[in-house]
Amino acid sequence: MENPVSISPGAAPAVPSASRDKLVAAYARIRAATQQLCKPLAADDYQVQSEEWISPPKWHIAHMSWLLENFVLARFITDYTPFNEAFDYLFSSASYTQGHMLPRAQRGLLSRPTLAEIRDYREYVDEQMTNLVTSVAEYDWRELSSLVRLGLQHEQQHQELLLMDIKQNFFANPMKPAYRHDLRSPRGEQRPISWLLFGRGVYQIGHAGNGFAFDNESPRHEQLLPGYRLADRQITNSEYLDFIMDGGYDNPSLWLAEGWAMIKQQELTHPLYWQRGDSGWKQFTLGGLRKLNPAEPVCHVSYYEADAFARWAGKRLPLEAEIEIALQKKAVHGNFIDNGFLHPSPAGDTGQWFGDLWTWTASPYTAYPGFKPVAGAMDEYNGRLMSGRMVLKGGSCVTPPGHVRASYRNFFHPHERRAFSGIRLADDI
Amino acid sequence: MENPVSISPGAAPAVPSASRDKLVAAYARIRAATQQLCKPLAADDYQVQSEEWISPPKWHIAHMSWLLENFVLARFITDYTPFNEAFDYLFSSASYTQGHMLPRAQRGLLSRPTLAEIRDYREYVDEQMTNLVTSVAEYDWRELSSLVRLGLQHEQQHQELLLMDIKQNFFANPMKPAYRHDLRSPRGEQRPISWLLFGRGVYQIGHAGNGFAFDNESPRHEQLLPGYRLADRQITNSEYLDFIMDGGYDNPSLWLAEGWAMIKQQELTHPLYWQRGDSGWKQFTLGGLRKLNPAEPVCHVSYYEADAFARWAGKRLPLEAEIEIALQKKAVHGNFIDNGFLHPSPAGDTGQWFGDLWTWTASPYTAYPGFKPVAGAMDEYNGRLMSGRMVLKGGSCVTPPGHVRASYRNFFHPHERRAFSGIRLADDI
Amino acid sequence: MENPVSISPGAAPAVPSASRDKLVAAYARIRAATQQLCKPLAADDYQVQSEEWISPPKWHIAHMSWLLENFVLARFITDYTPFNEAFDYLFSSASYTQGHMLPRAQRGLLSRPTLAEIRDYREYVDEQMTNLVTSVAEYDWRELSSLVRLGLQHEQQHQELLLMDIKQNFFANPMKPAYRHDLRSPRGEQRPISWLLFGRGVYQIGHAGNGFAFDNESPRHEQLLPGYRLADRQITNSEYLDFIMDGGYDNPSLWLAEGWAMIKQQELTHPLYWQRGDSGWKQFTLGGLRKLNPAEPVCHVSYYEADAFARWAGKRLPLEAEIEIALQKKAVHGNFIDNGFLHPSPAGDTGQWFGDLWTWTASPYTAYPGFKPVAGAMDEYNGRLMSGRMVLKGGSCVTPPGHVRASYRNFFHPHERRAFSGIRLADDI
Amino acid sequence: MENPVSISPGAAPAVPSASRDKLVAAYARIRAATQQLCKPLAADDYQVQSEEWISPPKWHIAHMSWLLENFVLARFITDYTPFNEAFDYLFSSASYTQGHMLPRAQRGLLSRPTLAEIRDYREYVDEQMTNLVTSVAEYDWRELSSLVRLGLQHEQQHQELLLMDIKQNFFANPMKPAYRHDLRSPRGEQRPISWLLFGRGVYQIGHAGNGFAFDNESPRHEQLLPGYRLADRQITNSEYLDFIMDGGYDNPSLWLAEGWAMIKQQELTHPLYWQRGDSGWKQFTLGGLRKLNPAEPVCHVSYYEADAFARWAGKRLPLEAEIEIALQKKAVHGNFIDNGFLHPSPAGDTGQWFGDLWTWTASPYTAYPGFKPVAGAMDEYNGRLMSGRMVLKGGSCVTPPGHVRASYRNFFHPHERRAFSGIRLADDI
Repeated sequence: MENPVSISPGAAPAVPSASRDKLVAAYARIRAATQQLCKPLAADDYQVQSEEWISPPKWHIAHMSWLLENFVLARFITDYTPFNEAFDYLFSSASYTQGHMLPRAQRGLLSRPTLAEIRDYREYVDEQMTNLVTSVAEYDWRELSSLVRLGLQHEQQHQELLLMDIKQNFFANPMKPAYRHDLRSPRGEQRPISWLLFGRGVYQIGHAGNGFAFDNESPRHEQLLPGYRLADRQITNSEYLDFIMDGGYDNPSLWLAEGWAMIKQQELTHPLYWQRGDSGWKQFTLGGLRKLNPAEPVCHVSYYEADAFARWAGKRLPLEAEIEIALQKKAVHGNFIDNGFLHPSPAGDTGQWFGDLWTWTASPYTAYPGFKPVAGAMDEYNGRLMSGRMVLKGGSCVTPPGHVRASYRNFFHPHERRAFSGIRLADDI
Repeated sequence: MENPVSISPGAAPAVPSASRDKLVAAYARIRAATQQLCKPLAADDYQVQSEEWISPPKWHIAHMSWLLENFVLARFITDYTPFNEAFDYLFSSASYTQGHMLPRAQRGLLSRPTLAEIRDYREYVDEQMTNLVTSVAEYDWRELSSLVRLGLQHEQQHQELLLMDIKQNFFANPMKPAYRHDLRSPRGEQRPISWLLFGRGVYQIGHAGNGFAFDNESPRHEQLLPGYRLADRQITNSEYLDFIMDGGYDNPSLWLAEGWAMIKQQELTHPLYWQRGDSGWKQFTLGGLRKLNPAEPVCHVSYYEADAFARWAGKRLPLEAEIEIALQKKAVHGNFIDNGFLHPSPAGDTGQWFGDLWTWTASPYTAYPGFKPVAGAMDEYNGRLMSGRMVLKGGSCVTPPGHVRASYRNFFHPHERRAFSGIRLADDI
Repeated sequence: MENPVSISPGAAPAVPSASRDKLVAAYARIRAATQQLCKPLAADDYQVQSEEWISPPKWHIAHMSWLLENFVLARFITDYTPFNEAFDYLFSSASYTQGHMLPRAQRGLLSRPTLAEIRDYREYVDEQMTNLVTSVAEYDWRELSSLVRLGLQHEQQHQELLLMDIKQNFFANPMKPAYRHDLRSPRGEQRPISWLLFGRGVYQIGHAGNGFAFDNESPRHEQLLPGYRLADRQITNSEYLDFIMDGGYDNPSLWLAEGWAMIKQQELTHPLYWQRGDSGWKQFTLGGLRKLNPAEPVCHVSYYEADAFARWAGKRLPLEAEIEIALQKKAVHGNFIDNGFLHPSPAGDTGQWFGDLWTWTASPYTAYPGFKPVAGAMDEYNGRLMSGRMVLKGGSCVTPPGHVRASYRNFFHPHERRAFSGIRLADDI
Repeated sequence: MENPVSISPGAAPAVPSASRDKLVAAYARIRAATQQLCKPLAADDYQVQSEEWISPPKWHIAHMSWLLENFVLARFITDYTPFNEAFDYLFSSASYTQGHMLPRAQRGLLSRPTLAEIRDYREYVDEQMTNLVTSVAEYDWRELSSLVRLGLQHEQQHQELLLMDIKQNFFANPMKPAYRHDLRSPRGEQRPISWLLFGRGVYQIGHAGNGFAFDNESPRHEQLLPGYRLADRQITNSEYLDFIMDGGYDNPSLWLAEGWAMIKQQELTHPLYWQRGDSGWKQFTLGGLRKLNPAEPVCHVSYYEADAFARWAGKRLPLEAEIEIALQKKAVHGNFIDNGFLHPSPAGDTGQWFGDLWTWTASPYTAYPGFKPVAGAMDEYNGRLMSGRMVLKGGSCVTPPGHVRASYRNFFHPHERRAFSGIRLADDI
């Protein structure tokens, strides 16, 4: 099980052991968070793939180990012995391996390797990773530590995906089981919207500073914006119900053509996870079915629904730059996964700028001027997805704390509703 | 948990306790056989549904309990308390519940109820059933015992289905896992075909006697047949390879139109579970991938392939009646599931009449003259399926011993290849 | 344009010129009938293909010429020059050319060759054919005349298909245009059903005598039948409405499983071409939309609907042999295409045995014992279609007179409703 | 047939008759151009719909009349009598009528109304329109003339669409007929690319001045652009062949994820309308199949192909603003439809800025800041399509002269290849 590590004999690694310790600790902490998220699952739950675009929890877990094995261990350890060579085909994803990989739709068929084997795989990778971080030679440190940090950021993205997928898997079950029975429901009343004004100007957009950022946040650059204003909170269920009651889903003049086609073809009349019953609206949450709370922000809407709502309200969705400028001035605090709701909360005295729900923007996800994807690295996929998607900003109640920032660019197709996505209005001045 | 049973107080049940004991024992034996079949499965394997027409093993197990609960317990026990009322929606099948049921394609999504709960369900039903058989009043005995026997026959059908589905699930896994590693491979050489002759005459067809039979085997009736002859064994892999090598899959004049369309659309060039590799042909079995044994009978062919082979060979497939007449004179012995191969075996000195592989016949599955489906019973579905299917006869290496007889009518669509099905040739005289 | 015909110089053809004249006349008459059927079409109508299984009228016309060119002219005329070599790919059908042919679904795309060119094609073929029949050498006469007769029978089948396809094309048009405005509506009242009895016995089935028959009607053979009885007319719209009103389309116990799946998936609640409006039921006919006449026989039902109706009525559909035995004793008279209704007529004092509507039988379309397809001939396709279809007997109101006989076997898939098909009940004695 | 027009009796219309004459003349000229385009069609060609997104020529013609009838005649003429009320359902399109309309895929089924009736419809509308323009009251003139101009611009868009659709219909025909046999092939050699430089600055974008423009070109606004450079001609077939030969279609790192999925799923290896034969590459044109001319600009590529080519070439596609700034300085001359090629031409000494081929830009089609769709007018659809599409600029060889301008925004989905679209490279400085 011991692999020879790339240590030049005699050359004592000069990396401060505090740096190594810090990285080992971050690694342990983030990897442990994934395991924590899996605790409420029964063995049966790991195997389910309720839609083609969903990965069974078991696959997520294996994939996160595969990523580290493939992009880190195999790169820095001479003659690295993979845990199981067949796993490369099973657990790679289209983002990285454009050719030879198990088709997405078949992920749910992998009863073998068993969950037990996948846990062994995880342990094996963790041991190798820890060993590598502790002992890698100085001249590899910079690249290694950068890749490990990148890998951990990816693991955090998969943590959010994991909860999104579990939610959809459980919703597909007619018994509507809860992921956790011990979740508190957020409380609070709805308050009126105030508007924040932003003057015409040339603004700086994109990643600044020395902290971690994905390649798609760069380069930082200037944008000329006319004056605009932003609502100081997200749209509530109550406001969205007004839109529904006013015939929002039956009025084609409110909708983009593709949006209208979608809601008519799929016969959609409300956000994902809503259910109308004899005793009023209910909403499926990670804590099971709950009575719909009108003061909570409306959640799991597509871009099309967000856009139609804004048009109905006589407003518009914000541009990415408009939101980013606002976020630049806010502390990165909010209702993240560590709040323990796993559900968005009424605004109260916050502006719901970070956390709660990803805000749909009216900006297609495209490259910044001068964008260059990081060649060969784990995040090169960011560039390949720059088509047909819209940007979302700010993080959500299932985002790990510390993961997002003002320049962070999330993206989904305009029809997708599985993300914890919400609506913030904007307007011209 | 105790349900009140329909016992008239004071009226001692006059059913001989030996009869009750015999039925309890049969019940226990057949139910235990199902559990035995599940032993080699990992927890993960129970959840997989690799095709829409497949049921995950977990679902099979629950369904067999649902059948007894719904058709027996709920009928004979006053105010019967079902284990879980929601299970009716989850575990009924289209054969019985034409309306309100979980769509087939969603069976693989049921991570809840968990396997543990489904085992509890099974135990609950077994306890109730044993109790009922032991104590039901005399005037209900005849109907009850008849229904229990019918239910057990169904369970045996599901045992065969279970192995068919497991085989397909494991084959869908790129790792090609074996269901059991301890299975012996059958041995033997290929021998020449001899022909059995049957003269022109009016023959009796259909179920006779007092033993159990499904409704579709009745009524017994006469058929006028010209003389014919039957091969005294099934077609081997070696003979089928000759067909392949001779361009069988590329010669449209050998195929029924629908068969030709199917093989071209799906690009089929060999039976299901065959794989051509650098070192020759392999065959996926319940014991994993094996080198193809030319002396074994060819297996997992569709009706279209069987028919094309027969045409290529200058012969034809037998009619159901032609096979049944031959079977009437044979003892019901052969390579059934208790042989422990779970795979067909070379003919040796047997005729492969019973067991080994279900024989495709050229007879569409239709009603016998005067056929009346048993109203409201568990097998009423037999009549509803009398369209578009072909009859197969004789049982297979995954059929429980004692389950088939000469008049037994199995049926599949002509395109299906998942059954353990083979080819026996017939000819006119 | 003149092709050298296979005439041995000096050898005077000894075929009686009356025989030649008779065949030339039959040829001219049947080919003219096709042109007559096309008269009511606008140029635009020739191009339409409203479903994949429909051929545009233009294609039918070209195909009928292709058939003669390919199977007759190219065979008997040395160095025959086809009208246009590209037509072989465009106008062959899967029945004859299993490989290289224009996919069915693309027939509607052939705006070129234009209708004018296809008419030239037809004239060219007619001239060549007439010339060939008039002058072919004696030693080829027997085979040629047999093939020409077969070709003309095919042309008659396409005449019926042409009207079926035109009906469906026009129905697909929201304007619901009439094919002909001058068609009379049949008249008459509904009369009670009487039952004809047939005793148990061994009957002769299949083609007898010297007249023309397709290969699938042979060989004539014996069948043993228990006694049975047949209704002396077809089921009326009025009787079928009773079935509908009684919830026939909502009662799964009346339907074969595939039939139930079909009507639920396609949301069928009545026969094809029916429409329910404010002023009651209407029916689309070749004469346009008409008020539904309750006394007419119900038309354009699938086998599944016919079978469900029979089960609802406490009866069953007849076997092919049962109908054929009855037809053997009837004169081949009835409401055929020459009646000029192009629509079924109330029974009146007829038994609707021939003409009016093809009767669905409960017999799958399979080979007769000892059946051998005619090698290489135009009707070899009959054998290739012997899977998944049911037999219909007796001809219809769009069948050319003289085309059918007692042993004639028409066949459609059980879900098909486009044929002029109806229901006759049978019962056991 | 005469409809009462909204003329106040006694109030002499004060619109200068020269204005009226000018509009009547423009109307006559543009409507005649449509008829001119149809001249080479056979009657059969008008009916064909080779793909769901294509409209048969007949439908285009009827739709253009419907547009005028519905948005102009019915608005200005009191109690206007439509030519045929049923046409509203048949000939409206989703852009205008979001609910009740004939599904797109059924347009090819409309053999009725016949072509003759549709020509009568056109004549009727033309007569009414001419009459209306000549006699409308002064107070309606402004709005009417504006709507007529808008309607004529739409007719010109349909002229281009008509040729795109005819090209695809004829290509779908295995006989590959030519739309016109008398088209000249463009001539010329390939010349090296020079680069035009544009400095960093705030630029004015969008429609300026008093001429006609669609609503999506407004409002004019400022954009801040870093410096950039543009190629002074479009990419040639020769250059694109280099990309193909270099494995462009097999290298996933060159492609956007959706583009890669598309070319692999559809097995694309070259632009639309190319064919590789024994004697080299051919290209289907409106003049039929021709040998591929390496000096012509590459045509009928998707956005994905344009983007992949640019990445392969180490460059990028231009932003809309970058192209528009260049176009602002060019005269609107080029290879438009009046050149008579109906095909792009080698650059020669032109820059191919206007005409030849629409240039794909890297800009998603979204609203300009402050964009307001014109309520209730014919072009309100522009806003509804602002999702999932990319902007193309400059017009093509099938665009009517005078139709485009620098601010003109054409748009297609990134996978579409049916437009006459090409590639111009851009780069950062």
